[in-house]
Amino acid sequence: MQRPIRINVINGNTFEPMTQGIDESAQAACFPGTEVVTTQPKAGPQSLECYYDEYLAIPGILEQIILANHDFDAFVIACWGDPGLEAAREITTKPVIGIAEASMYVANMLAARWGVVTTQHRTLDIIEKTIYKAGFAHRCVSIRTTGLAVIETETARQATIDALEQVGRLAITEDKVEALCLGCAGMSRLDVELEQRLEVPVIDAVAAAVKLAEALVGLKKQTSKALTYQFPGIKPIKGFPEHMQPPFC
Amino acid sequence: MQRPIRINVINGNTFEPMTQGIDESAQAACFPGTEVVTTQPKAGPQSLECYYDEYLAIPGILEQIILANHDFDAFVIACWGDPGLEAAREITTKPVIGIAEASMYVANMLAARWGVVTTQHRTLDIIEKTIYKAGFAHRCVSIRTTGLAVIETETARQATIDALEQVGRLAITEDKVEALCLGCAGMSRLDVELEQRLEVPVIDAVAAAVKLAEALVGLKKQTSKALTYQFPGIKPIKGFPEHMQPPFC
Amino acid sequence: MQRPIRINVINGNTFEPMTQGIDESAQAACFPGTEVVTTQPKAGPQSLECYYDEYLAIPGILEQIILANHDFDAFVIACWGDPGLEAAREITTKPVIGIAEASMYVANMLAARWGVVTTQHRTLDIIEKTIYKAGFAHRCVSIRTTGLAVIETETARQATIDALEQVGRLAITEDKVEALCLGCAGMSRLDVELEQRLEVPVIDAVAAAVKLAEALVGLKKQTSKALTYQFPGIKPIKGFPEHMQPPFC
Amino acid sequence: MQRPIRINVINGNTFEPMTQGIDESAQAACFPGTEVVTTQPKAGPQSLECYYDEYLAIPGILEQIILANHDFDAFVIACWGDPGLEAAREITTKPVIGIAEASMYVANMLAARWGVVTTQHRTLDIIEKTIYKAGFAHRCVSIRTTGLAVIETETARQATIDALEQVGRLAITEDKVEALCLGCAGMSRLDVELEQRLEVPVIDAVAAAVKLAEALVGLKKQTSKALTYQFPGIKPIKGFPEHMQPPFC
Amino acid sequence: MQRPIRINVINGNTFEPMTQGIDESAQAACFPGTEVVTTQPKAGPQSLECYYDEYLAIPGILEQIILANHDFDAFVIACWGDPGLEAAREITTKPVIGIAEASMYVANMLAARWGVVTTQHRTLDIIEKTIYKAGFAHRCVSIRTTGLAVIETETARQATIDALEQVGRLAITEDKVEALCLGCAGMSRLDVELEQRLEVPVIDAVAAAVKLAEALVGLKKQTSKALTYQFPGIKPIKGFPEHMQPPFC
Amino acid sequence: MQRPIRINVINGNTFEPMTQGIDESAQAACFPGTEVVTTQPKAGPQSLECYYDEYLAIPGILEQIILANHDFDAFVIACWGDPGLEAAREITTKPVIGIAEASMYVANMLAARWGVVTTQHRTLDIIEKTIYKAGFAHRCVSIRTTGLAVIETETARQATIDALEQVGRLAITEDKVEALCLGCAGMSRLDVELEQRLEVPVIDAVAAAVKLAEALVGLKKQTSKALTYQFPGIKPIKGFPEHMQPPFC
Repeated sequence: MQRPIRINVINGNTFEPMTQGIDESAQAACFPGTEVVTTQPKAGPQSLECYYDEYLAIPGILEQIILANHDFDAFVIACWGDPGLEAAREITTKPVIGIAEASMYVANMLAARWGVVTTQHRTLDIIEKTIYKAGFAHRCVSIRTTGLAVIETETARQATIDALEQVGRLAITEDKVEALCLGCAGMSRLDVELEQRLEVPVIDAVAAAVKLAEALVGLKKQTSKALTYQFPGIKPIKGFPEHMQPPFC
Repeated sequence: MQRPIRINVINGNTFEPMTQGIDESAQAACFPGTEVVTTQPKAGPQSLECYYDEYLAIPGILEQIILANHDFDAFVIACWGDPGLEAAREITTKPVIGIAEASMYVANMLAARWGVVTTQHRTLDIIEKTIYKAGFAHRCVSIRTTGLAVIETETARQATIDALEQVGRLAITEDKVEALCLGCAGMSRLDVELEQRLEVPVIDAVAAAVKLAEALVGLKKQTSKALTYQFPGIKPIKGFPEHMQPPFC
Repeated sequence: MQRPIRINVINGNTFEPMTQGIDESAQAACFPGTEVVTTQPKAGPQSLECYYDEYLAIPGILEQIILANHDFDAFVIACWGDPGLEAAREITTKPVIGIAEASMYVANMLAARWGVVTTQHRTLDIIEKTIYKAGFAHRCVSIRTTGLAVIETETARQATIDALEQVGRLAITEDKVEALCLGCAGMSRLDVELEQRLEVPVIDAVAAAVKLAEALVGLKKQTSKALTYQFPGIKPIKGFPEHMQPPFC
Repeated sequence: MQRPIRINVINGNTFEPMTQGIDESAQAACFPGTEVVTTQPKAGPQSLECYYDEYLAIPGILEQIILANHDFDAFVIACWGDPGLEAAREITTKPVIGIAEASMYVANMLAARWGVVTTQHRTLDIIEKTIYKAGFAHRCVSIRTTGLAVIETETARQATIDALEQVGRLAITEDKVEALCLGCAGMSRLDVELEQRLEVPVIDAVAAAVKLAEALVGLKKQTSKALTYQFPGIKPIKGFPEHMQPPFC
Repeated sequence: MQRPIRINVINGNTFEPMTQGIDESAQAACFPGTEVVTTQPKAGPQSLECYYDEYLAIPGILEQIILANHDFDAFVIACWGDPGLEAAREITTKPVIGIAEASMYVANMLAARWGVVTTQHRTLDIIEKTIYKAGFAHRCVSIRTTGLAVIETETARQATIDALEQVGRLAITEDKVEALCLGCAGMSRLDVELEQRLEVPVIDAVAAAVKLAEALVGLKKQTSKALTYQFPGIKPIKGFPEHMQPPFC
Repeated sequence: MQRPIRINVINGNTFEPMTQGIDESAQAACFPGTEVVTTQPKAGPQSLECYYDEYLAIPGILEQIILANHDFDAFVIACWGDPGLEAAREITTKPVIGIAEASMYVANMLAARWGVVTTQHRTLDIIEKTIYKAGFAHRCVSIRTTGLAVIETETARQATIDALEQVGRLAITEDKVEALCLGCAGMSRLDVELEQRLEVPVIDAVAAAVKLAEALVGLKKQTSKALTYQFPGIKPIKGFPEHMQPPFC
């Protein structure tokens, strides 16, 4: 009998209700033969809404991977913006998937032109750069923000979904998107309701990443250790605990 | 108990041994709860090695989808170049995945810089345009060809793998790739042997696409019918059989 | 005395009135010393308005070239989207010109910023990808659609021209285009009237392609047979008539 | 009876033998019903081999157009780099074609991948920027220089053609080009000999531009006066003769 | 004691009041230890508002550099569009800075997304191409024009600043810019007032270029003479004075 | 009398000898009226040679800015790769300059085509992405690595300079670069010696950034607080000291 696929989904922030929400989405998305554990960093911001938040979250995200490396077959970083993704690929041979890239790939497979709807207005640049870096400036034709905070995706769920419907509708009518990516891990599980309201595919980024993680594990592929994603070289890293000191191989 | 996921993998050409080879790869890649059926078009070239071959293969590929639409949850088009992919998305609501896009997404998740190794020298432009169209000109740093024919991937398997090793090694040493996409459906199942020889991830495009098809079905997502991928409008299509006349909805 | 230049213009669809309309445009555009014959495929859709239509039209378009190869000096594929263009270049040494590329080149030589106006809303992606593939995303600043059907360009000519004027005016005032490409072969001969109404150059794509075909023949240039556009290799192509089996050289 | 098309080809430099060479190429390329007159600026460098040369040549090139505006139907600027092209389009309604853009369009219609071969090594950047600006960075895969001077294209014709063959052969074998643009007006009429030696299409840029000029005149199109290419506004231009003072309309 | 840095700012046009305005801005911007002299070409247009103006200005701009080469440590070309910049780098080893590039670099260092506000509507293309050429199409998200003339930046200063405020506000609210480049040398010194009105950084292009000139001189760097910016080769340049004949080294 | 400009240069790593080396370079580069203080993070890796190193260094870099915000007019982040740059711009209104962007701007102003030479082979991707993100893929034509470690730039200085000469020479002869960026803060002050050996401009990234910092302060410009670089919102950041908790305004 086949051993289950074990996936560690790591919430990018330290907001416990969001970790639970992400976990619900991940559990619902995975195949019966998959075990998902959702965790959150020991340290880091309550929500990631700017570059400062992102960069302060990354060491904690990476620590999760280091600590859990032997217990899982793949890792998912659950924050749109994919904080620390390249570094995560250095410290493990297990596949690591970002929810932003995962949802963009899914969007590409469902629609010719898509958009992203997300929270705070100020994240426009983070979203835009994430898409540009991925190479999808010609596929993503709309980025729209509600102005609500990340934590409101959990604490003001109704307001969040209504606001997403509103900006999503503008994305459809004004920008002619054919599918929408939910640009925040906190928006997990809103896809079904929004699909009914908007009548275009709406992509839950966490669910998308969990499925792609299963796919990579199923393919028995591991992260390349050829050049860029080699294990970090041995060197002292001041102020960080022993388990975060290289080597990791 | 969950109904199995049913995937129809469609070989792009009409070479029966390759259809079998593709099927072996697809069966090996899928989860236990997935049923894969591999078919080939009734009409079309024995192998796809130029634009003429590709365009003559497409109607037959699309016909397969039309005929099998109600029996499957997703379709895979098994030819690197993804012939007819956009049209396929118009004629069904089921997800349709091309093996080129699937393997590029997998490569992106495993390595910072990757390459494609494939058959005939003349396909360089088809490969290059496929990558440019996908948006990955900055991720794909090498395209190398063996000069062998597509059917030789089945009829001269040893020569094929040796030639792939040779050009793959140049891709690693000269172009600094960190992973390799096998740019032909006929190369299915060569990934394991090549990974051992080359020590970088080697991606079987058919297997990659089957896994992404499972992922999309698992996500319960369907192709957007919002604008581009609407069902084809009703109109006479001269010289084509009744079942290929729209509407398909 | 110089032998006349003989050009075969191939309507992409099987709608006889459009073939006639295209022919009128082509005859009006060519030099006295040029003979133009306009034909249409034996098989294929009545109009090309989506990817499915395009791909089903291509074999019939290619067949026209194969059958007429010895009787002409150049070929024009008369459908914006240039269906099958690369394959056409493989099966003949004669220059083959697509009306989309031709009109874009002409637009570039007349204006710094131009746009495309065309029929059905759903063709937006086909148009956009055609421009992106050509490399002119920085020159084309507007794509606008009337929502009318392709056959209406012949059957509802007045409505078509009025609708084109309306979206063309928006392209000028909102998007600041300086010239307009008529993005459908059915719009041939509307350029003069629209130029008077809109006061910017309006480009009849068929006429543009005929002139570029004359130019290439005049230059005595033939399609390169060096790598990509070599003649298709010999192989069985199931379900296609004898005359469509390679080799063609 | 139709009035002949009158084209003024303007050599970018002031080297009389090159003006004659360009004229021979232009005369050979045009249709019987076309009259070509080749001129050169009154002032400017003997050859254009760097940005300084180009910029000093432009006022003289523009003056030619101003003086001859009423006598011709179209203008060709005969220097690869298309010096002053946008300004030329401002001062006349007649089509103005640059030989670089013309030869790139012709190359695109003949081959999937092409290259440029030209003179001095230092012009690499001018050539590269010309291609990037045109949008063809994905079509041009090779730029190679002989190191010879522009005037040697006339004074050392045998050495020039041998050197072009040599770098052209490298472009074919190393860079996999399928056609070559001759990147200097002085190389006019070398295309036939080089095609025989290299067996790929070789494009005489002057001939290409003359044919495109005929095409645009045949289409009865004029340069857009909508925004960018409006006539220059009236204002004093110090140090320039009366006939170079706006307005020109 | 350190010798002062000597910078020659060259107004691109021949409008004396603008030369004075530019000088004021340059004097205000430079460090105490810097000497700035602002000059204007002997010949050329009163203002640069189209490509024709630009190209007629360039020889005069280059002449200024040739004449003053031994008296200065760096040169600034004060016209947004950076006319003649590459040629200027050929004729001297001293750093030459264009005000467009300088202000774009400064904008990049202050804001994630910026825009350009400038004068005549017709300059849209010049501005756009300048940004595209620099590589900043992904950073510049807005170009807006007032419709006023360049000389009005001096003669109708109040109207100019009010119009800039108006289009600048639209750039902020509609296009979401975070900083604005003043896209005309005549707008020098309007940055302070506009910053107060608009509450985003507003960049005086002349001041920006003077500071970068000081920086390059301070770094003791000189223009590369390796390939592109070698000194122009020796050759007769007809109709130009002795001092404009190469060599310049 | 003018108050001196105070710049805080922050070494990205915690290797004290490199902090000293950077300081020497920064002191040598600044104007007499500038005070430079070079510091290093309290925590972080000894050298930054991979993404893991970079991300673990960023919180410490940002902390330096927070602590020193009131004592300086501008900040320089001294690591090629510009770690944390966007976040740094959020937490202060003072200009923050990365040494990678600074040296690329300087390279653009000195040469048409430039390259980067740096340390470990594995950093190729970090360098490449930094350039792509900046928009300079068309200006940077070479990235070459010595294979030496970052700390060897201090501990094996002779070997470093010899290796840099070697790869730099290949960049000149093979890739035709006209200037070189030293792609590591540890290479500061090697520019003079390398310029003598290689005869092209060689850019000390630290010096470049210090000069641009002076320039921005001299312009009296501050980082935009309009959208992206607003101060981080107030929220708990677990595991970080009080002084790293927002708000910072």
